[in-house]
Amino acid sequence: MAFALLVDPVPATRPAGTFGPTRRVDASAKEVSLLDLGVLRGDGCFETLAVVDRAAQEVDDHLDRLASSARLLELPDPNLDQWRAVVREAASLAPDTGEHTLKLVYTRGVEGADRPTGWAHLGPTPDHTRARRDGVSTVLLDRGYPRDIESDAPWLLVGAKTLSYATNMAALREARRRGADDAVFTSRDGWVLEGATSNVVIRRGGVYQTPPPESGLLHGTTQRAMFRVLADRGARTEYRDLRVSELMNADAAWLVSSLRYAAPIRAVDESPLAVDAEITSLVNESLAARRL
Amino acid sequence: MAFALLVDPVPATRPAGTFGPTRRVDASAKEVSLLDLGVLRGDGCFETLAVVDRAAQEVDDHLDRLASSARLLELPDPNLDQWRAVVREAASLAPDTGEHTLKLVYTRGVEGADRPTGWAHLGPTPDHTRARRDGVSTVLLDRGYPRDIESDAPWLLVGAKTLSYATNMAALREARRRGADDAVFTSRDGWVLEGATSNVVIRRGGVYQTPPPESGLLHGTTQRAMFRVLADRGARTEYRDLRVSELMNADAAWLVSSLRYAAPIRAVDESPLAVDAEITSLVNESLAARRL
Repeated sequence: MAFALLVDPVPATRPAGTFGPTRRVDASAKEVSLLDLGVLRGDGCFETLAVVDRAAQEVDDHLDRLASSARLLELPDPNLDQWRAVVREAASLAPDTGEHTLKLVYTRGVEGADRPTGWAHLGPTPDHTRARRDGVSTVLLDRGYPRDIESDAPWLLVGAKTLSYATNMAALREARRRGADDAVFTSRDGWVLEGATSNVVIRRGGVYQTPPPESGLLHGTTQRAMFRVLADRGARTEYRDLRVSELMNADAAWLVSSLRYAAPIRAVDESPLAVDAEITSLVNESLAARRL
Repeated sequence: MAFALLVDPVPATRPAGTFGPTRRVDASAKEVSLLDLGVLRGDGCFETLAVVDRAAQEVDDHLDRLASSARLLELPDPNLDQWRAVVREAASLAPDTGEHTLKLVYTRGVEGADRPTGWAHLGPTPDHTRARRDGVSTVLLDRGYPRDIESDAPWLLVGAKTLSYATNMAALREARRRGADDAVFTSRDGWVLEGATSNVVIRRGGVYQTPPPESGLLHGTTQRAMFRVLADRGARTEYRDLRVSELMNADAAWLVSSLRYAAPIRAVDESPLAVDAEITSLVNESLAARRL
């Protein structure tokens, strides 16, 4: 079960209900122009949402981030009512049960046309049971930047989820070459940033901690959901900058992302970390149960 | 006059003459799959060649760099005989006279298919007469990395010309916002790197200088051609790391790229630089006259 919905993005000011229908096509249909700046220059942004039993998760947070990425890229503001309708339509077409992946793509469009391109596609989510339960091994990889780069040099687009993602993919290959499952990016000045495609959450002294989004990383929708789950159970959560040594010496740590949820980090550069199976499964069951 | 040639990339080991024909389509034809990793993750590389009076320029240097970018991205080695034939075919279809732009694109292909995607497109080159003659104003923008990042962190793909180009485009927008024409990236530790889409060449004490390619930048095909032109006329050329102050105090400086050739830098952060009209036009006439 996989398909795509082609979207004709309308200005943010256009009122709900006045934009045209999507067009449903095969997921791998050739529908992108050879001159689309999304492919020629990675010039666009995306979001990846989990759809569980036909319910799209964290829709508002994902759409807010899409809008924020577009702003950093100076793309026209996406019409969030339109995208919300697209998400609703795609989710409604998903199978009744199971985990699916919904990707939203919003690019600068065909060179010279001055009109963004958009589409959504939905397909099955790979089985993440094992990573969620047994955890993932990680290596630390230098992101090259100091932690405060985002305010210093906004043109580096550190806070935007752009289609220029080749480095994230190269980091995953490097991790696998070193025999690990995933990568944790560190700043040039020794701070923990984020995973290659996830956020880092650690627990120390009973407090769940993650680096603040303004510290050169993407604010995670699932990290936020995990913090809400934990706070609801009375746990303390906190945004603070984390030294690499604090990750290495954490009582427990996770890589958190939309599709894999909370995957315990069981090793950092071959140094083992304890897996808290109880909290992990509690968090992941709560994340899977979200129906809003 | 614009068109694209769709390429079915074959392994590098396949002997010349045994690969299929290209397919000619409209330049903006929708021929890219919605699942192509080139668009979903900027996961691929490209080259931009000048075609002047039907002659493609610096073909070998461009193809070598395509191969080197692919290696850094761990894509299958491109078959350079195949790409050379594509360049030849595209150039032969160009109008008899005038400047055209030939872009080669090589991506990781459709997700899961394990087979790269390729195409070439050719279209008219915008008129760069004014930038070549009167020069460009520039601003210095922090690239975020130290100069030696490439050896430290190859997963950052600093030496590859990838489709993940959103930052280069954002730097150009920032330059324009500041009232300048172009951007010069500097390293975190105060060295000159390269332009947003070009290389920097300066002259000081009669010696033409550019930062070495291993210092966190792309080795420019046109910078190399310019050095050959200058060396042929007995000028001294040199690769050496350049401090920002050396650029600011240069006797002359240029942004050098495949389509615009050598554009004199007439200001850096509003501090004026002298334009050497004589050398500039000599260099640009020689660059335009290349017919190999």
